[in-house]
Amino acid sequence: MKKVAEQISGYTYGGADASPVSLQDLENIKISVGWTDEDERYRHMAGDVLSDQTKPLVDRWRREIIGSIPNLSRHSRTPDGEPLPEYQTKSGLRFEQWVLDTCCRPYDQDWLNYQHEIALRHTSLKKNATDGVDSTPYVPLRDIIAFIAVMNETIKPYLSAKGHTVEDVKNMHRAWTKSLQLQVALWAQPYAKSEW
Amino acid sequence: MKKVAEQISGYTYGGADASPVSLQDLENIKISVGWTDEDERYRHMAGDVLSDQTKPLVDRWRREIIGSIPNLSRHSRTPDGEPLPEYQTKSGLRFEQWVLDTCCRPYDQDWLNYQHEIALRHTSLKKNATDGVDSTPYVPLRDIIAFIAVMNETIKPYLSAKGHTVEDVKNMHRAWTKSLQLQVALWAQPYAKSEW
Repeated sequence: MKKVAEQISGYTYGGADASPVSLQDLENIKISVGWTDEDERYRHMAGDVLSDQTKPLVDRWRREIIGSIPNLSRHSRTPDGEPLPEYQTKSGLRFEQWVLDTCCRPYDQDWLNYQHEIALRHTSLKKNATDGVDSTPYVPLRDIIAFIAVMNETIKPYLSAKGHTVEDVKNMHRAWTKSLQLQVALWAQPYAKSEW
Repeated sequence: MKKVAEQISGYTYGGADASPVSLQDLENIKISVGWTDEDERYRHMAGDVLSDQTKPLVDRWRREIIGSIPNLSRHSRTPDGEPLPEYQTKSGLRFEQWVLDTCCRPYDQDWLNYQHEIALRHTSLKKNATDGVDSTPYVPLRDIIAFIAVMNETIKPYLSAKGHTVEDVKNMHRAWTKSLQLQVALWAQPYAKSEW
C-alpha cells in the first residue's frame, strides 16, 4: 500500500477500534452516493495521479486556504491562537496519507474503522489526544462539511497535472467527489448519533 | 420571486421560526466553502436555466433514482412500504421550489430560517408533521449527505440544456455544488447540536 512516509505519527490504520457503522451501512451509503465500478476504477487512477502531489496539495489546503481563514485555522493552533508547528507537521502527514487512502485503500472493515477514528479525532472525544496538544476541543461538523466543497474544487488542477484526457480527469473528479461525500457521511456519525 | 406553482402546500418561506444559526455563522460557512461573487452571479444564471426544468429534474431524483433505492424511498412511504401519493406530490412541489430558492433567493435571514425548517422536517422533530402523514420518523443524516453527491452529478445535463458555453456550465455547476454543501452544513445543525 502506498505510504507518503515510512513513519506517520498517529497513523493507526489497521489498528483502530471497530466502527459503529456496519459494512451494510457502508454499502447503503455507497448506493446513495451513486458509487459505480467506474468510480472504483477512476479513484485508483486518481491515486496514481496524486501520489507524488500529496505534499503540495495538502500545503495548498492547509497553509494557503485554511491558513487564510481564522475560523478554520484556529483548530490547529493553541486556544490563544499560537501556532503548533509539530501538530501541523504530524497531522499534515496524516492528511497527505488520507488522500492516498481515499484513492487506493479497499473500502473494507479496516477502512471503515479508520474513517471512524478520523471522525472521532475531530470531535471532543479524541481531538488533540493523538498528538497530545492543547488546541480547540473539536472541529464543528459544519466546518468539515463546508470544507469538502473547497477540496473538491481545488483538487481539479492536480488531477489534470499528468496529461490525462479531459474525460479521464472528469471521471477521476467524479469518483473523488463521491468518495468525499461518502466519507463526510461517515464522519457525521459521532456528531449526529441516534438520527445519524 | 420565481414560484413553481401558485400554491405550494406547506411552503412557509418567510414565516418560519428563527434559525438557531446566526447570519455570522452563515458568513463563516460561506467563507469555508469558498463562496465568491462569481458563484453568486452563476447561481442566478443556473436559476434561469433550471426554472422550467424543475419538474423533470425532481422527477429524475425522486421517481427514477430515489424510487429505485428502497433504503431512500421508504422515507416517503408508510411504515409498511405503501406509497403516499399525496405526500409525494406535495413534498415534490416543495422540492422543485427548493431548486429555485437555491438559485434565486437572497441568502438572508428568511432563507436561513427556512433552511432550518427544511432541516427540522427531516428530523424526528418535524418529519411528517407538515403533511400529516405516517412515514419513517426521520431521514438519517447520512442519507441526506450522501444524496448530495447524486444531485451534484445528475444536474449537469440540465445545466447544459439551454446552450450555454462549457465555461458557463462549469461555473454554474461550481456555484450549485458549493451552495449544496453550504446547505447540507446548515441542515446538519439539528442533528449534531452542540458540536455542530
